[in-house]
Amino acid sequence: MDDSAAGGSEPDELAPLAIGIDIGGTKVAGGLVDDRGLITRRLRRDTPHRSTSPAVVEDVIVGVVGELMSGLAMERVTAIGIGAAGFVAADRATVAFAPHLSWRDEPLRDRLAARLTKPVFIDNDANAAAWAEWRFGAARGETHLVMITLGTGIGGGLLWNGEVIRGKHGIAGEFGHMQVVPEGHRCECGNRGCWEQYASGNALVREARALVAARSPIAMDMLARIDGDAANLTGPLITEAAREGDMMAVELLSEIGTWLGVGMANLAAALDPGMFVVGGGVSAAGELLLDPARTAFARTLTGRGYRPEAGIVAASLGNDAGLIGAADLARASVDP
Amino acid sequence: MDDSAAGGSEPDELAPLAIGIDIGGTKVAGGLVDDRGLITRRLRRDTPHRSTSPAVVEDVIVGVVGELMSGLAMERVTAIGIGAAGFVAADRATVAFAPHLSWRDEPLRDRLAARLTKPVFIDNDANAAAWAEWRFGAARGETHLVMITLGTGIGGGLLWNGEVIRGKHGIAGEFGHMQVVPEGHRCECGNRGCWEQYASGNALVREARALVAARSPIAMDMLARIDGDAANLTGPLITEAAREGDMMAVELLSEIGTWLGVGMANLAAALDPGMFVVGGGVSAAGELLLDPARTAFARTLTGRGYRPEAGIVAASLGNDAGLIGAADLARASVDP
Repeated sequence: MDDSAAGGSEPDELAPLAIGIDIGGTKVAGGLVDDRGLITRRLRRDTPHRSTSPAVVEDVIVGVVGELMSGLAMERVTAIGIGAAGFVAADRATVAFAPHLSWRDEPLRDRLAARLTKPVFIDNDANAAAWAEWRFGAARGETHLVMITLGTGIGGGLLWNGEVIRGKHGIAGEFGHMQVVPEGHRCECGNRGCWEQYASGNALVREARALVAARSPIAMDMLARIDGDAANLTGPLITEAAREGDMMAVELLSEIGTWLGVGMANLAAALDPGMFVVGGGVSAAGELLLDPARTAFARTLTGRGYRPEAGIVAASLGNDAGLIGAADLARASVDP
Repeated sequence: MDDSAAGGSEPDELAPLAIGIDIGGTKVAGGLVDDRGLITRRLRRDTPHRSTSPAVVEDVIVGVVGELMSGLAMERVTAIGIGAAGFVAADRATVAFAPHLSWRDEPLRDRLAARLTKPVFIDNDANAAAWAEWRFGAARGETHLVMITLGTGIGGGLLWNGEVIRGKHGIAGEFGHMQVVPEGHRCECGNRGCWEQYASGNALVREARALVAARSPIAMDMLARIDGDAANLTGPLITEAAREGDMMAVELLSEIGTWLGVGMANLAAALDPGMFVVGGGVSAAGELLLDPARTAFARTLTGRGYRPEAGIVAASLGNDAGLIGAADLARASVDP
């Protein structure tokens, strides 16, 4: 258990509350969220590995909900929202596929509703993050929003005039699995050259590990920082090193940012949004990531100079956007 | 002038008519269209080269409209629709940019309305084609349609629940300028590696010319067919050769089709449509193009096997979709 990020005041006696759970490739983050999008209680767990059974993930969710509700009257929590890093089908009840998790046609909503005896709402994690940024964060007032969440992989959400664009089968927004390099790096989804193999936390760590393993001259400071053990390399550690001026870490974040910008230029060609909001764990790198992204975007956008260009901003809710959005979508589903 | 494709019966005395003009990278196609989407009169012109002034293109349009209306009472034609291979701005009056034409922030609608003394409606050519296929063609009843027009380049249109998805500034759907090959072929838009450099009529002719110029063994039959002169190579000629079994032509169409499928898999990841309709001049190749496209799509789609897959069908209005859609959008804009 990791409650180090726990915080927030005890919930106001009267405020209606919803629980939001954000299930990513490595972390499960849960929170008790009020109707202004404020998190009043939170906790985190590791995501069970995708080789484990779906029931294990379900148990983790039920455990998180139980802890978040401890000491609260049952009726204080109106609904439970799940933002999942997977393909949530059009029925909004089933997770059809999750590249980083064990779900395959998993009837998640009904299984959880039976165990939690509360209305359960499920959505793709990046759709939830987009909703949160639009309701409470960096994208308030934006009519044409593309949300990009950089974590283990890339999540994507489209919010057009306040409505999530879900596509015919519910699974639009899987931007991370657009091919950007023919015959490129193998992706967990089964393909090669997916965007998230070039712009994500996984990509960042993979590249850093390769340099460290090769004892590259530019990896010497990093080697000292991790006591020579590549297993100690993580995305947050690389970001921290970059902030402190580590040359290799700065360069790797810049590469990730450049690929981020190229992919956003592709999405701008296809979708013409007014704004890109970049969230997820890797977005904690801030301008070390976004500055190279903006440069690459401006250089790659088709028709540049003859068209208005979308803004590229950091998620103002940071890595909390997914859980806040999941909670607020659940709240809105029972009390629109 | 090329009226070889002229045809159709004289218009019914009572049917309301609209004029549709489809302005592509190489051809201007105009037609008189009734409210069932039938073309009763048509003609074609070459598109003026993009080095000429916008006024020259305007003159061509005015000339085409004049000829189409000859002998008709002015009031028989209710509106004029233009489908243009360019970025039509959110005001629906201005062409912001056209990779293959001379327009840069061109106030096309008002210039034409002043000269034609009729309501003028302008839209992107692929949006117009999507509309036509949805109203009268292969996509009737489809709620989530992606239209791909393969001509000089790639045009794209999105029709979600009967509404064209235009984006914040009116210019969504420029799929042809999504980068599929890092540092790939230079594109007329200014970038490198754009999808349309790998899947379009231009790409087909470029590859064929290279093989012919190199006197490649697989180009020998084609060399005989074009009397040894690469200038005689055109997209339609290559398609005709492929139909007759020319090995090089079959292979090139298969390559174009494979890239078409890869790009559609990218769009399916992002947008999750129910159907792709493939139109434009190159789509005349039919299954020689679509069969390899479907194979590549099925192999490249993320989550394949765990998701419903979009159908890939030929435009049933063929290369006429743009002009029919432009006319019908114009008609609908004055008489919804």
